[in-house]
Amino acid sequence: MSASFWSAEVAELLRVGPGVRLREIDPDSTPGTGADRKQGEAELARAAQELRELQEKLFAQSRSGARDRLLVVLQAMDAAGKGGIVNHVFAQLEPYGLELTAFKAPTAQEREHDFLWRVESRVPGPGVIGLFDRSHYEDVLVQRVRGLAPPQEIERRYGAIAEFERRIAEDGVRILKIMLHISPEEQGERLLARLDDPEKHWKYNAGDVDERAFWAEYMEAFQIAIERTDAPHAPWFVVPANAKWYARAAVQRLVVTELRRMSPDWPEADFDVAEQRARVERTLDLTWP
Amino acid sequence: MSASFWSAEVAELLRVGPGVRLREIDPDSTPGTGADRKQGEAELARAAQELRELQEKLFAQSRSGARDRLLVVLQAMDAAGKGGIVNHVFAQLEPYGLELTAFKAPTAQEREHDFLWRVESRVPGPGVIGLFDRSHYEDVLVQRVRGLAPPQEIERRYGAIAEFERRIAEDGVRILKIMLHISPEEQGERLLARLDDPEKHWKYNAGDVDERAFWAEYMEAFQIAIERTDAPHAPWFVVPANAKWYARAAVQRLVVTELRRMSPDWPEADFDVAEQRARVERTLDLTWP
Repeated sequence: MSASFWSAEVAELLRVGPGVRLREIDPDSTPGTGADRKQGEAELARAAQELRELQEKLFAQSRSGARDRLLVVLQAMDAAGKGGIVNHVFAQLEPYGLELTAFKAPTAQEREHDFLWRVESRVPGPGVIGLFDRSHYEDVLVQRVRGLAPPQEIERRYGAIAEFERRIAEDGVRILKIMLHISPEEQGERLLARLDDPEKHWKYNAGDVDERAFWAEYMEAFQIAIERTDAPHAPWFVVPANAKWYARAAVQRLVVTELRRMSPDWPEADFDVAEQRARVERTLDLTWP
Repeated sequence: MSASFWSAEVAELLRVGPGVRLREIDPDSTPGTGADRKQGEAELARAAQELRELQEKLFAQSRSGARDRLLVVLQAMDAAGKGGIVNHVFAQLEPYGLELTAFKAPTAQEREHDFLWRVESRVPGPGVIGLFDRSHYEDVLVQRVRGLAPPQEIERRYGAIAEFERRIAEDGVRILKIMLHISPEEQGERLLARLDDPEKHWKYNAGDVDERAFWAEYMEAFQIAIERTDAPHAPWFVVPANAKWYARAAVQRLVVTELRRMSPDWPEADFDVAEQRARVERTLDLTWP
């Protein structure tokens, strides 16, 4: 039964923080549910309605001055399923209230500025759900692992990120940071699947294979990033992601749980409803031509 | 049967140009189909798959250098259903390939610049479908009707718009300009419906009632705008919109027809597939921890 798809609160089960040991989190596991793929896909469809209603309320109340908004940060190894999360979970939202940013390697102009410059301009405004596919965490993940910035600069960035996130949280931004956690075996299979399907060749990047050799270093970089930037106002979650259906349902649940906590509501009319009704009624005989 | 939902090509039936007489287009009509609401909603759901596949191809081929993209401009009187079009048609697309801009009254900064300044920065990049909810046409519609700019400035804008649209078309932007056409009677009913539902009060704007008195002037402004800016590379369509199901199915069909004409395709791999397959396979014994 859909009402009992979740046997426990995902937001508690998947919450990590200082001391997290990624090697102890099984990418094949499905915490909080004993369901299978078919049930997972049904749950994803079922919960869409609540997700959309919560989002519409969040957007609506911002028209009356509420400043609340949500920022979801997605980080993962390549082929871990970020695209699927965007296209199957966040595609359920109304376009008006969703702002997606897919961060790429920094442009020449972006490199002229501090690493948070391009991020600042993409923080969602009131009522909007901002979604980062990759983010400022790349600046302490790939940049650390591949030595693209000196150690003392990487070190500085952890503090800069923590301060940045605290500042925007104080302005009304709720932040969820999500790592999709796959195994290197699963990644290898997915890269092969991309190569075997001509319709997916455009998603294949030869450089991804090079990065596989640094798996342990990436996991260490993730652990350190979580350790240094986790906070009550900007929590980290690790979502086992070898099963796509689980990762999608779990991320959807994390967002729904957070939106429920924000408890957005329809704003009250800032006009006299009866008076406006009378005004409209006086124009009802208007015809054209 | 869904295959025969459309009895004629909507893109031809709804195409207008110089000489358009809006008073001769019945907002209650449903050109190209004899279907009813239930069938219209089924068609909307049925065609979603083709729409999404066309969009994904458009996006994919841009990764290999194709510059094609689509800009859809939505204009209408208030409560004509722009929001519903966004939430029921364009919400079917993948968030990666959709950029929605809801233009509001110009900000102080925007007013410091030419009226096309804020529009230029929102033209979609390669592979993307840009969607304008209102647009630069407000600058020759409400601004003309309410005298917000002097006549010679309004006059200048028609030419500026035509040049702007031709320029971006030459750079690979296909442009569809759509007017949702409702009757003043239908608008009156919809405004009352908003007032009768507390969940819709946030969508009600008392100013909309004032504009109703200028219906004939707005229709004249629309006709002149169509007359002055219609072009083969930037065609205008008038969609009868008293029936929401029809307007949604028709706009979806206009977009699908245009995307078919652009005939995007999966890009060819720019790497040696067999060689990459071998590379990945050599890493398949990678495990962690």
